[in-house]
Amino acid sequence: MNWNTRYSEAASRVADADAVVGILKLAEQPGIISLAGGLPDPRVFQMEETQDAMARVLRDHGPEALNYSPNPGITELREYLAGRMARMERVACSPEEILVCSGGLEGIRHCFNALTNPGDPVLFEDPTYMVALQVCRELAGVPIGVCSDDAGLNPDALDETAGRLAREGRRARVLYVGPSFQNPTGRTWTLKRRREVLEVAERHDLAVVEDHAYGELRYEGEWLPPLKSLAPERVILVHTFSKIFGPGLRLGWVVADRDLIKRLGLLKLGTDQCSGALAQRLALAYGTSGGLDAQVDRAQDLYRKKRDAMIDALADFPCRSPWLQPDGGFFLWSEVDCDSEKLLLLAIERHGVAFVAGNCFFADPTSAVARGSLRLSYSYVAEDLIPEAVHRLGQALRECLSS
Amino acid sequence: MNWNTRYSEAASRVADADAVVGILKLAEQPGIISLAGGLPDPRVFQMEETQDAMARVLRDHGPEALNYSPNPGITELREYLAGRMARMERVACSPEEILVCSGGLEGIRHCFNALTNPGDPVLFEDPTYMVALQVCRELAGVPIGVCSDDAGLNPDALDETAGRLAREGRRARVLYVGPSFQNPTGRTWTLKRRREVLEVAERHDLAVVEDHAYGELRYEGEWLPPLKSLAPERVILVHTFSKIFGPGLRLGWVVADRDLIKRLGLLKLGTDQCSGALAQRLALAYGTSGGLDAQVDRAQDLYRKKRDAMIDALADFPCRSPWLQPDGGFFLWSEVDCDSEKLLLLAIERHGVAFVAGNCFFADPTSAVARGSLRLSYSYVAEDLIPEAVHRLGQALRECLSS
Repeated sequence: MNWNTRYSEAASRVADADAVVGILKLAEQPGIISLAGGLPDPRVFQMEETQDAMARVLRDHGPEALNYSPNPGITELREYLAGRMARMERVACSPEEILVCSGGLEGIRHCFNALTNPGDPVLFEDPTYMVALQVCRELAGVPIGVCSDDAGLNPDALDETAGRLAREGRRARVLYVGPSFQNPTGRTWTLKRRREVLEVAERHDLAVVEDHAYGELRYEGEWLPPLKSLAPERVILVHTFSKIFGPGLRLGWVVADRDLIKRLGLLKLGTDQCSGALAQRLALAYGTSGGLDAQVDRAQDLYRKKRDAMIDALADFPCRSPWLQPDGGFFLWSEVDCDSEKLLLLAIERHGVAFVAGNCFFADPTSAVARGSLRLSYSYVAEDLIPEAVHRLGQALRECLSS
Repeated sequence: MNWNTRYSEAASRVADADAVVGILKLAEQPGIISLAGGLPDPRVFQMEETQDAMARVLRDHGPEALNYSPNPGITELREYLAGRMARMERVACSPEEILVCSGGLEGIRHCFNALTNPGDPVLFEDPTYMVALQVCRELAGVPIGVCSDDAGLNPDALDETAGRLAREGRRARVLYVGPSFQNPTGRTWTLKRRREVLEVAERHDLAVVEDHAYGELRYEGEWLPPLKSLAPERVILVHTFSKIFGPGLRLGWVVADRDLIKRLGLLKLGTDQCSGALAQRLALAYGTSGGLDAQVDRAQDLYRKKRDAMIDALADFPCRSPWLQPDGGFFLWSEVDCDSEKLLLLAIERHGVAFVAGNCFFADPTSAVARGSLRLSYSYVAEDLIPEAVHRLGQALRECLSS
């Protein structure tokens, strides 16, 4: 049987992702230093504390941890998360306003699926989290990019784009953003910009999906309020354990209106029914015993050092735009004077270094700015390899520019 | 903000599931004996062996178990599963023909999404697994029921239905079935019936999604080959750890053509990207040390006893059709001479016993047979409560019949 002739439109819409998956695989070959994937550094994991927490779970809640759990999440975990959101982010919410999901992305998916129809435009900051774009496309949504600068999403551009779409009779309902240590730019919106964007969102009645994945990983500067705390009604906050505990648990959560949370839960019935009880119990035990807070501290120290090492190494790097010095997160972003996909292949094949070419982070991957940008991740690479990685990348870039 | 006015068509299509969720919640109230949910009996869990396996995972693979893992699953687990499929089910497959997913349902979802478009008919045996129907509807597919009898899906009805749809210009591409200890009927197809259905599937070029969730829980009679072993090219087998280890891991797997597996993996990038490494490592450690096989043995013994207790208790029960004595699985199924939804509310409110009304298992929940059937689960209820549960149910039925 030839399955290729049987694929649905949805299956065709995800086919492009295969290329990105292929390149990430290439990046994992021996001999390649990878600045590609956004994986946590294994050194932030606290194995002893994790083992202790898991032992307590299996001793005190073993049979429950192995069985089905409530669709919206284990009640005690939702209570813990509500408390944590209040304490860490000044986001006031009840446990009923929280849906536990299997990573932040699952929450983003259900938001898009609950709030947009096939063919609807969905607003994204340009550039944005690649997999959120993919999910939007899989659901037959139409990603529309809104330009951003170092202060965050451009509110005038948002106003203009939302207005134009409305005049064209295809009003946008949803805006997806990452205001804190964003993937892929590492950028954090200023407080002024947060307020301005929310005003425009209000004017155009947009539901705002705020990706807070890296939000706790600030290692410099002052805390800034998440959009959710500034406009609690309009904003859906999506958070995850992936960067503060470990992606291997596959756990995240959504904070939103309780009616919406119920609806997202019904959509979750059709992906995995409920998130894993074992992982939920572990996250709860680890969190309540102080493990999460201690790990966030460790992570902040470690990633600050790695960012500094990367910034130092990049001092003489011949990129077009200056590297933004991020106050948190995993990533650095810049533009170069050549096609970054071409640069990437050259870097992997001839120089033994990998990164992610910028075009996949744009609603329109064919624009000049999309094709000339690149994301470097410093989160996973060993610190002592950073100078060598940047050296190799510089060689690849010089070769690319002169070819 | 009123979120109710913002929901998408997909969100509207899942709204009906809310009623079922509500009833399952009612069934969990104190004082109610529940024969509703299909949960494993906690006594089949082997906590000591699970603790040992988990300790080995965290000691030997800790940082890996907490980090991201490959989208299609950890290689060693896919190898183990390929071996297990060959040993247990005579299904020959390579690791590349296996996708690890987050419960069997996630695999079913990706199959429907990869192989059908909105508006397409999807063939289901009547009755069928409720959540598979829900997923089909969420994806805007149109479930079409095909009648079945005690020997399995009716091949003539399948031929007639597939032929009629083709003549109407809306050819069906996918047939979803549960040939072994099916949810909700407990029924197992005969070998003859398996062959006949596959012949009809061949004639109409249907891809067959075979749900094997309960397949290993045979506690009486002879092993029968899964459809996948009889028609390896045409059949996609979906299996899960939920009934042989624990649903709290949220792990299942799909066995299919390797090109299709890649495509299902791309769709998985948009649900949870990869299944949990921690759960995968645990399943592997537990499986390779013999835990799974021992647990399946335990489960067979335990569920056989509970089935017998239920069948005994039901001897004088005034249902219309005889109870099928299942050779495995979790469920009993029958028909009564009243509306089973009405019976259910009466049973919960006045008699302290719950089950699942049959209509939600049918492509057309409004038909007379759908409205008069019910599913009893004996998997989770304590054995010594079974006689009392059936006694209460009998009282409720007598009251319902005389009202």
